[in-house]
Amino acid sequence: MKVSKFGGSSLADGHQLQCVFDIIKADDTRKVIVVSAPGKRFKDDTKVTDLLLTYAKATIEDTDATDIIETIKDRYHAIGNHFDLPAYELADIDEQIDHLARKHYRSFDYLFAAFAAHGEYLNAQLIAKVFTHLGVPARFVDPKEIGLRVDDNARSATFDTKSYNTIAELDLSTSERLIVPGFFGYTENGDIATFSRGGSDITGAIMARGLSADLYENFTDVSAIYAVNPSIIENPAAIKQMTYDEMRELSYAGFAVFHDEAIIPAIQGGIRINIKNTNDPEAPGTFIVPPTEVQQTRPVTGIANSNRFSALYLHRYLLNKEVGFTLRILEILKKHNISYEHMPSGIDDLTIIFDKTLLTQEQVDGMLEDIAATIKPDTLKWLPSYGIIMVVGEGMRNRIGALTDIVTPLKEHGISLQMVNQGASEISIMLGIQPDLAERAVKAIYDNIFKMV
Amino acid sequence: MKVSKFGGSSLADGHQLQCVFDIIKADDTRKVIVVSAPGKRFKDDTKVTDLLLTYAKATIEDTDATDIIETIKDRYHAIGNHFDLPAYELADIDEQIDHLARKHYRSFDYLFAAFAAHGEYLNAQLIAKVFTHLGVPARFVDPKEIGLRVDDNARSATFDTKSYNTIAELDLSTSERLIVPGFFGYTENGDIATFSRGGSDITGAIMARGLSADLYENFTDVSAIYAVNPSIIENPAAIKQMTYDEMRELSYAGFAVFHDEAIIPAIQGGIRINIKNTNDPEAPGTFIVPPTEVQQTRPVTGIANSNRFSALYLHRYLLNKEVGFTLRILEILKKHNISYEHMPSGIDDLTIIFDKTLLTQEQVDGMLEDIAATIKPDTLKWLPSYGIIMVVGEGMRNRIGALTDIVTPLKEHGISLQMVNQGASEISIMLGIQPDLAERAVKAIYDNIFKMV
Repeated sequence: MKVSKFGGSSLADGHQLQCVFDIIKADDTRKVIVVSAPGKRFKDDTKVTDLLLTYAKATIEDTDATDIIETIKDRYHAIGNHFDLPAYELADIDEQIDHLARKHYRSFDYLFAAFAAHGEYLNAQLIAKVFTHLGVPARFVDPKEIGLRVDDNARSATFDTKSYNTIAELDLSTSERLIVPGFFGYTENGDIATFSRGGSDITGAIMARGLSADLYENFTDVSAIYAVNPSIIENPAAIKQMTYDEMRELSYAGFAVFHDEAIIPAIQGGIRINIKNTNDPEAPGTFIVPPTEVQQTRPVTGIANSNRFSALYLHRYLLNKEVGFTLRILEILKKHNISYEHMPSGIDDLTIIFDKTLLTQEQVDGMLEDIAATIKPDTLKWLPSYGIIMVVGEGMRNRIGALTDIVTPLKEHGISLQMVNQGASEISIMLGIQPDLAERAVKAIYDNIFKMV
Repeated sequence: MKVSKFGGSSLADGHQLQCVFDIIKADDTRKVIVVSAPGKRFKDDTKVTDLLLTYAKATIEDTDATDIIETIKDRYHAIGNHFDLPAYELADIDEQIDHLARKHYRSFDYLFAAFAAHGEYLNAQLIAKVFTHLGVPARFVDPKEIGLRVDDNARSATFDTKSYNTIAELDLSTSERLIVPGFFGYTENGDIATFSRGGSDITGAIMARGLSADLYENFTDVSAIYAVNPSIIENPAAIKQMTYDEMRELSYAGFAVFHDEAIIPAIQGGIRINIKNTNDPEAPGTFIVPPTEVQQTRPVTGIANSNRFSALYLHRYLLNKEVGFTLRILEILKKHNISYEHMPSGIDDLTIIFDKTLLTQEQVDGMLEDIAATIKPDTLKWLPSYGIIMVVGEGMRNRIGALTDIVTPLKEHGISLQMVNQGASEISIMLGIQPDLAERAVKAIYDNIFKMV
């Protein structure tokens, strides 16, 4: 049995959904289908999730939402009409869209979560109707029905692993395909809470593990995961297979193909993952598998880069003589509800690296003010934009000289680094770099390593 | 005016003290002399400080201390007798040694501190007597007299910078040389508290800054600081001059010539330091100066290595998603009164590096137990011995490719690294390595970099 998850671009319109239908129909073992909300149909299109968030805002502000509601309905209608779905089936979807604004929510956060989740919630219902209509019986499965429980973090929820027991009870002996909306679960109080954006991958992984699937297929719009971003290197090497940990490190540093939290249930359940292309389903795609299944041939599997970081640099003599020095800094971070990513230190220096997408200017200002007042550093610098490159490969475990192959081409190209962090993870080397140099650096490293092989 | 500090090996016996006397006599501007306790006269000799610690232990345990007391007295007698010092002058020293065991102490820690400090305390008195006897008038200056105040940390005290005001009042217009014992100060309660071992360097630096000396001479038993440990490389390059920050980084990682905390008062006061050899006083030695005074000619100034570290490795999925994760670890460290040195992190991994000389097995066991119980990591490893190599040079600031010159020779020699940390400090690169590979690695890096120039 396979769990097959389809992303927003694979479900953007009727034409795409036809491809999905063909894929499902072709293989009876594709039993559980996890779906995203309809994504972009063209470059400047708006995703249904974003339309729903605009609708949510209008609801809170009590402004006229007629236009946005129509736009949302049109998206679902266009898909339904592509398959000549009867009008009453679409009326049921419309009714739920209208009803969203009239429900009671525990807080604005839960309101936003519920509106956003309806992108998937309604799409899963619609897809079940379409498939049945096309002659492949399908049933919508509400995450509530299978006890998909999450914590109280309304818009960045964490999955409760106890739910695996209830998910495992789902009856798979039926001839119906089971259509599960991705991206959200229910809190103990029965409210909808969503994972972070892109979180349908997480639902897919949870279902695959809960049901002990033989394979978790993750359908998207690329035929493989490439060793480097194709916008930097033309026709880069495709990755045929990699380990869970490699995928996790690459996702973290910018490989957006697969959500970095979605790997955890797969690791824990030993579920093999196959990234595939909805528009090229015959291509083998990329397999993400346990380390024992991989025959490594190259030292480096992939090179990722991301500019989503900021950094704080702090200097004070004798800073690490003091027991509890970093503790005081972390207490300041906690006070402002700031999470940090990495904290490389020298003798008298400390650099703290943050994910800037998780920070507001207010948090940054408050943190810097408190650090200046409490810690009294000699130097305190804030770098609003900080690039990170991650060179990842199981082949680097214990491999002597991996770092040489990375820094030598940078020297040759006159590119300087702000930070090098090797050693905490055995399968990756992390480089800190000025964001405007990152792409040149990735290119230099790629050319050196992938030409060597 | 110069402050001249002499280490224990320069004061080990009468012959050495004669050299010190000649150095002082030769230059009238050597006005303030800071002295250590008598050190080792030969390889297997015992330092007077260690004899005093044995005496302290006997006092606490109330066991017979007659022999150890005689041994201590003999050391001072041997020096006095070398210069035919009158017997009554030595009787005064003897009386203070006997009296040590009869005084009241606030705690065992303060008892140990007071006994240890008497190595310097008595030696400074003896040296003032000897110099005066030899025709160079000298006066013993008790740190109490000049208000050299420290905090309550009995055996690893931190200096109170308010004392600079009282030190500045010391009358230098006298024709006498002023002999100041190193290593200790007085707490607010009037108790003796010592700096960490080797702390006479700190007293010298404090005196030089408090008195705005033109130069702080630090006499020891080497004619220069070398770019690398001479036990690893034969006839290594001597460092003619380096910056404060370079010295600080090198001291931290094993260059024992100069105490790493002693550099701070010099930095803050802009005091130039000259490391010189008591047995080769004409040699220029090594100057440690503000960065503006250095004309840099090489990319790397020195390479230090130290095996005094331990490391903890911890892996748990999603560990850095959680605000306050590291905070909980640091709270555990604080509970066990453990200070850490560095904390490089990956996505799901954290390595914490400790100075093992500051840890007891009991602390380690308690910490590991609490981390296992509270954090529940997937993996928790303790590496009792962890080597650190520090490659230091102002020339590395913004220099592209510094890392390449370090890691390439390691690759050629087949030496693998456990950790690389570049970036928190701009003038150094820190490498983590298996202790048994450290010397080979230092040799490979030295040969590559110092042959290139």
